[in-house]
Amino acid sequence: MHIDVIASINEARAIDLSQRTVIVIDVLRATSTIVTALAHGASGVIPVETIGQAKQCAGTHDLLGGERYCKKIPGFDLGNSPLEYTGASMKGKRIILTTTNGTRAIQKSLKAEYIFAGSLLNAKACAMTALKLRNDIALLCAGTQDNFAFEDGICAGMILHEMLHLPLPSELNLVYNDLGKMVLSAYRHHQDNMHMALMDCASGRRLMKIGYAQDIEHCAQLNAISLVPRFDRHMMIPFSLAI
Amino acid sequence: MHIDVIASINEARAIDLSQRTVIVIDVLRATSTIVTALAHGASGVIPVETIGQAKQCAGTHDLLGGERYCKKIPGFDLGNSPLEYTGASMKGKRIILTTTNGTRAIQKSLKAEYIFAGSLLNAKACAMTALKLRNDIALLCAGTQDNFAFEDGICAGMILHEMLHLPLPSELNLVYNDLGKMVLSAYRHHQDNMHMALMDCASGRRLMKIGYAQDIEHCAQLNAISLVPRFDRHMMIPFSLAI
Repeated sequence: MHIDVIASINEARAIDLSQRTVIVIDVLRATSTIVTALAHGASGVIPVETIGQAKQCAGTHDLLGGERYCKKIPGFDLGNSPLEYTGASMKGKRIILTTTNGTRAIQKSLKAEYIFAGSLLNAKACAMTALKLRNDIALLCAGTQDNFAFEDGICAGMILHEMLHLPLPSELNLVYNDLGKMVLSAYRHHQDNMHMALMDCASGRRLMKIGYAQDIEHCAQLNAISLVPRFDRHMMIPFSLAI
Repeated sequence: MHIDVIASINEARAIDLSQRTVIVIDVLRATSTIVTALAHGASGVIPVETIGQAKQCAGTHDLLGGERYCKKIPGFDLGNSPLEYTGASMKGKRIILTTTNGTRAIQKSLKAEYIFAGSLLNAKACAMTALKLRNDIALLCAGTQDNFAFEDGICAGMILHEMLHLPLPSELNLVYNDLGKMVLSAYRHHQDNMHMALMDCASGRRLMKIGYAQDIEHCAQLNAISLVPRFDRHMMIPFSLAI
């Protein structure tokens, strides 16, 4: 089974994603927010790129989430902080979430057989689920404005680490690319102090500066959630695997 | 001072390299071979892409080096193994070396103020020299056929590590990109067993398979050489800095 870590959305062009399981990773903060919302009972999260698309999608009972220039969008119910998606108000709600890189990463993956949302919160659950499906796997780091983002790479490394620690059938040989080996090593270097590592990367420093230190703490919790969001007909919903 | 690690030759397009010091890294094996040859007394190494260019460049006293399909090229004096560039026969010789990725990486960097050849063998010397020049720095991983290569990334991480351990003037603040943070962490994870790490990446496994295990052992020696090759008028020559 081949596992390719892809450094950014642009790099995804070079790889045939059909028949693959793609795990889209945008740790700070889109995929962490999606995982958190579903874990707190939201029925689904629809990721869209623009404010206009969000408004167009939203029914009267839906919640609108997102931000621009670090401020909640006028008329929206929620910002982009995963901590806003933890209350009882999530229960049964459908959420429309604006996220630029997350949405672009999903759009690049549409040929894949399965598209999941991965984060540090649900890395082990992603690893287990993807291995059970037996497809080749791509770990797609969404990044920031076409650049590689440390926190997404470290999460890809964690998912790979979890895969290598699962009991595997003897015929299943995991082969990963050189970027996979790199992010795996970096994850192992930081695994005992992930919060600190995330505070010191570009996205982390930006979030600290604008007052979102608590978001980093939340997103740095390893394997706190055992749910895997799957993108299915325009919506992220909890995936369950009949075994 | 900004230090950007660039994952592959293709990625170099996105960055303005003018006024920078660029360190081209092709650990297995082009830059390791160039450093080794100059350390053993070669007067210069001219990197070229094709066999035809190599033959065209070569004067009667020059040595021709390179390989195709893992075999020495008919009529050439040397293959691509750095261990062939260690004897007394190097003394005073000019070498024409065919290297696809190394040459392409240098061509992408021609706008830079300085172009150096970096490897694990001379990482500390590269770090010291580049910092003294005070330009912003790019660590350009040559990679393998447009793909990120683990060994080049780990070398970029080592050069960054050496920079961070040098005594710096208080006004000099080193700022590096997220890929820099990633390769730095991975280097620190592997620094006590670099030989093993290099045997287990894609290029390392390929070299082992075709009988070049000793090359990996040679290229994995950290800071064994204190010389920095500079690309100057089509040739790599030892760089010395008047201080």
